[in-house]
Amino acid sequence: MEYQFSDRISALKPSAIREILKVTSNPDVIPFAAGNPAPEAFPLDAVREISQKLLAENPILALQYSVTEGYAPLKQAVLADMKRRYTIGREFDEIIITSGAQQVMDLAAKVLCNEGDVIVCESPSFIGSLNSFRAYKAILKGVEMESDGMNLEKLEETLKTEKNVRFIYTIPNFQNPSGVTMSLEKRKKLYALAKRYGVLIVEDNPYGETRVAGENVPAIKSFDEDGIVIYAGSFSKILAPGLRVGFAIAPREIVAKMTVGKQGSDVHTPIFNQLLVYEWMTNYDFLAHIKKIQDVYRSRLNLMCDMIDSELGGFFNYKKPEGGLFIWGELPESVPMLEFVKEAAARKVAVVPGIAFMINADDRTNCIRLNFSTPTDEAMVKGMKILGELKKEY
Amino acid sequence: MEYQFSDRISALKPSAIREILKVTSNPDVIPFAAGNPAPEAFPLDAVREISQKLLAENPILALQYSVTEGYAPLKQAVLADMKRRYTIGREFDEIIITSGAQQVMDLAAKVLCNEGDVIVCESPSFIGSLNSFRAYKAILKGVEMESDGMNLEKLEETLKTEKNVRFIYTIPNFQNPSGVTMSLEKRKKLYALAKRYGVLIVEDNPYGETRVAGENVPAIKSFDEDGIVIYAGSFSKILAPGLRVGFAIAPREIVAKMTVGKQGSDVHTPIFNQLLVYEWMTNYDFLAHIKKIQDVYRSRLNLMCDMIDSELGGFFNYKKPEGGLFIWGELPESVPMLEFVKEAAARKVAVVPGIAFMINADDRTNCIRLNFSTPTDEAMVKGMKILGELKKEY
Repeated sequence: MEYQFSDRISALKPSAIREILKVTSNPDVIPFAAGNPAPEAFPLDAVREISQKLLAENPILALQYSVTEGYAPLKQAVLADMKRRYTIGREFDEIIITSGAQQVMDLAAKVLCNEGDVIVCESPSFIGSLNSFRAYKAILKGVEMESDGMNLEKLEETLKTEKNVRFIYTIPNFQNPSGVTMSLEKRKKLYALAKRYGVLIVEDNPYGETRVAGENVPAIKSFDEDGIVIYAGSFSKILAPGLRVGFAIAPREIVAKMTVGKQGSDVHTPIFNQLLVYEWMTNYDFLAHIKKIQDVYRSRLNLMCDMIDSELGGFFNYKKPEGGLFIWGELPESVPMLEFVKEAAARKVAVVPGIAFMINADDRTNCIRLNFSTPTDEAMVKGMKILGELKKEY
Repeated sequence: MEYQFSDRISALKPSAIREILKVTSNPDVIPFAAGNPAPEAFPLDAVREISQKLLAENPILALQYSVTEGYAPLKQAVLADMKRRYTIGREFDEIIITSGAQQVMDLAAKVLCNEGDVIVCESPSFIGSLNSFRAYKAILKGVEMESDGMNLEKLEETLKTEKNVRFIYTIPNFQNPSGVTMSLEKRKKLYALAKRYGVLIVEDNPYGETRVAGENVPAIKSFDEDGIVIYAGSFSKILAPGLRVGFAIAPREIVAKMTVGKQGSDVHTPIFNQLLVYEWMTNYDFLAHIKKIQDVYRSRLNLMCDMIDSELGGFFNYKKPEGGLFIWGELPESVPMLEFVKEAAARKVAVVPGIAFMINADDRTNCIRLNFSTPTDEAMVKGMKILGELKKEY
């Protein structure tokens, strides 16, 4: 039978990153293309203790069906923590627990966008989110990134020109892939622009807790007095991505619609996983664990930058990020980027070609993305030396 | 701010069942409205042992990111089991692990339906699936149920009349809510009709393992030589729904598209949960556990039928199902069904009004759905006596 697929899915290519992740599951390949948290960043003892306790004391709750909006005590714990540490969440806000922050992107597009509506994105941006949006046949308009965040003149131009813009999608901290952190000034201006033009903001902050240098910049959601920001958070980078637990904090009406959307998607996020996160947040010193993760990533980031400077100096043009999992940099104009990526893969070093993160099919870039959280120190040194050898051929 | 939502989500009302589930989480209410597996049906000791073993021996695998299509050994184990026990799966088929069988419905509509395309459904049918389909703005056409499955004359009429029918959605075993099992003859005819009219079949079989009487009827997928059946299975009723692990077996090209769709939905199903299911399937006697579950449900079903006969005899017109979790029956024409449901709720007995399962807004029914898997024997007796008292007022 000749299968006929929906327009929405025919337009989507499999995520280049996911495809590369398949390659990198080959243990021979040095995984600079992945986005996995460092294995030593998982609080294994805590997870072991909690699992045992949950299944001893509360097994039926942990295994039975649950409500779509999420486990109420976890909702309250996350809201309280976000409010206390980041002034996130007003009277008009509500929270929903999601199957990873990826599901927040899926639900945001699902409840806000008709086919042909516009989402304004940073360019480059995280391909997973872009594909979530494309699956609802939203039209993506990219605004170029500068070293302190989106070019706001271009953003305003886009908001003026485009009809039916439903939201601006931003990753303000250590953006994936660019590593850029948006300045406070730009966050405030971006908020003011969104308010003026009557569009929402989806603030995706999976990496916020991985800051290894510089000072925390307030979240856009922290100055949301108007109910225009949907904030997405995740436990993937601070606890474990395999659990698939994230959340959105947004105005009550939006969360209510997201809940209806989630019912039809997966009924609820696994309750065992939610209980595990809840116990970890409330009975363990998770702030100390976050500090430990930052120490791990600081050392990884420094090592990778040292190796770039020694092996790829003058060849890979980058700015050291203050957190996150990625380094983004540009190859010399004379070097054909895709060929370089393929050559690297042939030598068993996986990196992501920058083109995967561009918004429009005809966008050009000579950048690549390197991940420093996944490889061991030893693999990192080895991989960078291989890239250093490859460089000599250009 | 006045929020503007997508047409797709504005058309959806929160699932009446989910809303009722919220009420029934009040421990005072007798939960004939739920669809929860019986707590004593969970293999608690196995889950405890497996969790401990996984987190001792393979913690990083259990907590790290994984691939979208599912944990390869689990995929192989499920495929092998389905092939061996049910002759499901041909050379051209592939499997994807999903976040519950609900996600199979979401992905089927996502990859197969453009807005305005038609899905043919049994009427009544499971509201969760109907809402998944509606979220993609598919048009649902209901075909009435008979005691041995869909009315096939009406089905053919619909296939003849309707343009752009993308698939027929059926729950062939112990259908939710009607309890009906489709006869082998109808399964074969339905398959032939789908083939003749060039439409796919989505065969949703969450309850197949809960048969408590009669003989197993072969799955439609078992005679799929043409690659036109998407088979959905679930571990919710045989292991634990809170884990959210299901699967689809379908032609390779369809599974490939579903994988792309799933990437944007939730990246992957939690890997800890997948590993748990895999260990249970391979290292435990899960067939013995299924037999145990059947014994539990046989006794529950028999008790509920006894109570109906003694308390609601002549008032609640039903046919005893051979499995599943539900009894569907009709109140006398003179009894206003919705009023009866509300009166029952006021007396702390929750049942689902049949209207929740109808396809079209103007469909009428005087049926209600009773669940026999959730309440304890004691609660069941008490609840049925309350309904018996209520009956006397009509």
